[in-house]
Amino acid sequence: MDELLYERVAAHVEALIARGTLRGGARAPSVRKLARQQRCSVATAVLAYRTLEAKGVFEARPQSGHYVRIAARPPLPEFRATRTLAVFAAPAVSSLVAKVYGAARDPKVVNFGTAVPAAALLPVERLGRIVARLARTELAQHIHYDVPPGNVHLRRQIARRSVEWGCALGEDDFVTTVGAMEALHLALRAVTQPGDVIAVESPTYYGLLQLIESLGLRVVEIPAHPGAGLDLAALEEALAQHRVRAVLAMPNFNNPLGSLMPEANKKELVEMLARREIPLIEDDLYGDLHHQGERPRSAKAFDRDGNVLLCGSVSKTIAPGFRVGWIAPGRHRDRVEALKFAQSVGTPPLLQVAVAELMEAGGYDRHLRGMRAALAAQVQHTRDAIAALFPPGTRVSRPQGGFVLWVELPHGVRALDVHQRALAARISVAPGPIFSARGKFSGYLRLSCGHPWTPELEAAVRTLGQIVEGLAARPLARTA
Amino acid sequence: MDELLYERVAAHVEALIARGTLRGGARAPSVRKLARQQRCSVATAVLAYRTLEAKGVFEARPQSGHYVRIAARPPLPEFRATRTLAVFAAPAVSSLVAKVYGAARDPKVVNFGTAVPAAALLPVERLGRIVARLARTELAQHIHYDVPPGNVHLRRQIARRSVEWGCALGEDDFVTTVGAMEALHLALRAVTQPGDVIAVESPTYYGLLQLIESLGLRVVEIPAHPGAGLDLAALEEALAQHRVRAVLAMPNFNNPLGSLMPEANKKELVEMLARREIPLIEDDLYGDLHHQGERPRSAKAFDRDGNVLLCGSVSKTIAPGFRVGWIAPGRHRDRVEALKFAQSVGTPPLLQVAVAELMEAGGYDRHLRGMRAALAAQVQHTRDAIAALFPPGTRVSRPQGGFVLWVELPHGVRALDVHQRALAARISVAPGPIFSARGKFSGYLRLSCGHPWTPELEAAVRTLGQIVEGLAARPLARTA
Repeated sequence: MDELLYERVAAHVEALIARGTLRGGARAPSVRKLARQQRCSVATAVLAYRTLEAKGVFEARPQSGHYVRIAARPPLPEFRATRTLAVFAAPAVSSLVAKVYGAARDPKVVNFGTAVPAAALLPVERLGRIVARLARTELAQHIHYDVPPGNVHLRRQIARRSVEWGCALGEDDFVTTVGAMEALHLALRAVTQPGDVIAVESPTYYGLLQLIESLGLRVVEIPAHPGAGLDLAALEEALAQHRVRAVLAMPNFNNPLGSLMPEANKKELVEMLARREIPLIEDDLYGDLHHQGERPRSAKAFDRDGNVLLCGSVSKTIAPGFRVGWIAPGRHRDRVEALKFAQSVGTPPLLQVAVAELMEAGGYDRHLRGMRAALAAQVQHTRDAIAALFPPGTRVSRPQGGFVLWVELPHGVRALDVHQRALAARISVAPGPIFSARGKFSGYLRLSCGHPWTPELEAAVRTLGQIVEGLAARPLARTA
Repeated sequence: MDELLYERVAAHVEALIARGTLRGGARAPSVRKLARQQRCSVATAVLAYRTLEAKGVFEARPQSGHYVRIAARPPLPEFRATRTLAVFAAPAVSSLVAKVYGAARDPKVVNFGTAVPAAALLPVERLGRIVARLARTELAQHIHYDVPPGNVHLRRQIARRSVEWGCALGEDDFVTTVGAMEALHLALRAVTQPGDVIAVESPTYYGLLQLIESLGLRVVEIPAHPGAGLDLAALEEALAQHRVRAVLAMPNFNNPLGSLMPEANKKELVEMLARREIPLIEDDLYGDLHHQGERPRSAKAFDRDGNVLLCGSVSKTIAPGFRVGWIAPGRHRDRVEALKFAQSVGTPPLLQVAVAELMEAGGYDRHLRGMRAALAAQVQHTRDAIAALFPPGTRVSRPQGGFVLWVELPHGVRALDVHQRALAARISVAPGPIFSARGKFSGYLRLSCGHPWTPELEAAVRTLGQIVEGLAARPLARTA
């Protein structure tokens, strides 16, 4: 097919960007100006810009025109380069993780390191009023052990919300937990034995790798695409090669990629595992934090025989420190309940009831909408700042939900070096290698965008950009 | 040595009791009457009664005289009959435990089954005021993750209290946990691998057996004496026979025995294990609930090299449902912290701070004193009622702290039968076999005395006594 005129115009603009004439974050020429420069019609210029917009090169801002997003191209999925599906023992990433979290506790450090929403985005005041009332008037009812499956009031509220996930589960389908981490821990303990192989997305949240390590499990890392998440063909290959005992995945807004698995893929994943009777442990921690459109369905929505153990919590939407989560363990329910009792007896009832009342009250959906909009804006601001202030060769993910960015550094720049220099400059970031059991992603960073955008954050991104630029310029770093 | 006159008189009274002339719970003849009957001096009768009192046959009640406690003799330690130290896989006691806990949730059931103090004994109002204030005025500070080692305010309070345990630990010696169960779970995970053998007291709390089972560990059950707790000679034998990887014990008021290990034994235990580099996991959940004298020291007080992992919580003294506990993991601290993060990220900070403030406020020691007195009285009432209302052949422990009784049923009566019939009569008890990995203690019950004594409780003990009597009379039960 011959190249059309608008494609030629678009290619010209891309070339300007590639040469650095148009830098990331810059405003593009108006369509009229472009039409004049390129001697084409305004309609052709508009078509060229739409093409660039669709490719993610440009971003249209209402009443403001088009902005270059060239540095903000999604990172190349690493698996294109290295696609081996060998099994590895999970690594001891703990000491590095401890550094990231240690830094997060220091109020003087700018925290891009941990995925925590700012208190300003959480419903602190309303939740506080509810807790205060419960504490004053009915603490005697909530002071005792609340043994599994946990508080029925909360389970009802979660069940009600599960309709939005495409699940329509009942209150008896849930067991409440101490956050999603306990839910995932219970799920893994329910369906695996030490030494078993489980499949995880790569990259994946380092907390999951630590959990897997602590249980003596081995992992096979399945490449995940920044757009569509888990690579199903690679998973199928891994299932053929290894005796995989469970698959652990975040179909909705994988941490750190922010990827969203299409519904067809979710369905295929669930069916692929059901055929082989391999449990799917689904971590849907970020499912409520979509940036656009409807709340995505969970993979559990396609579960026909109780093979999916769905885990979630309110840690990213209401209160990380309340440690209120849940699991819908499907056919593994009895085992999960027994393990939960043995492990922590129960979940604090006062906090469960407080969360249930908050969810039940009018205004909770409004809170979620406001929070989603704020997080989407914070992600966009951070993305734009990275595009404008990091050196060429940087790529950054375009998450469809959640609030973390996955940044591919220019070739040869090592995330651990950036992490170290950033900490010296009182900025915390999460280095890529902690997101892999094999120490992959040495050239990646995860940046969390939990805090409302401020000049201080912009200055911190600028500093990070300078650190990366300095490392990119070192001959040694280039060959490392 | 010749038998002295007062001994002869005492023996005569014991014979009256053995023949049933004097029944358990009955008031004994006054010393004057006894002196007349036995043709001895009043001084001799007093001496005889003191002897019987010292032996636990009689109980003196101020302004009321002596009462027969014959049915309330401590149960015979079962190990005298069957002292084998073989290793067993922990059993699936879960379904039975679920029944016990299920019954406890039904408000129509009289709950002797679960070891929970009544809300009336807990500092509900003061705790509620603290939580309400924190929730209204500073929730934003307590809404985020509180990663290990946990809230420093709470750790300081626990460290301060550890002086009373003979430990004088610092705030950095502690990691806060989701109750003592999580602490014990972390301790076991830190020092064992699946398949390892650990030594436990026998009988021991069924929750520990479930925890051990869930971790794929095997147990060797070391006989525990109702008075002095863990039998150290038997433990030494077991250590010689098996490759024991950890010892888990409750030196202070073992659940279900209520036994108190003498200090010399604690010291010997700690030294025995330190020599062999076998970690001691100490569960000191009931340590604050001594009925008399000073708070007993924990075994950790004798720890010289960080070999003791001390676990505790406020579940029996402040709020079971707050799930606030701690571990002083000694030299296993790094591993415990990493496991805690992987397992549940952190403990809810709001509840930690509330407990810390309650402990810090004046009046907390007064609360503990009041609670101890109330529990001691409840234990005594229940004991007396059992003595009076259960058939001959019943024996019951004389706990030195805590609030559970260990009841030996007349020969041939099976605890599981009692448990079933009691449930039908809306009374819950904990049957002996759930306190052993080998299904030992088929003729024992644990009765909890967490609730203030009422005519309803007395009626329930009467019903239990009738159930036991009915089973004791059955020829089948006798030979079972």
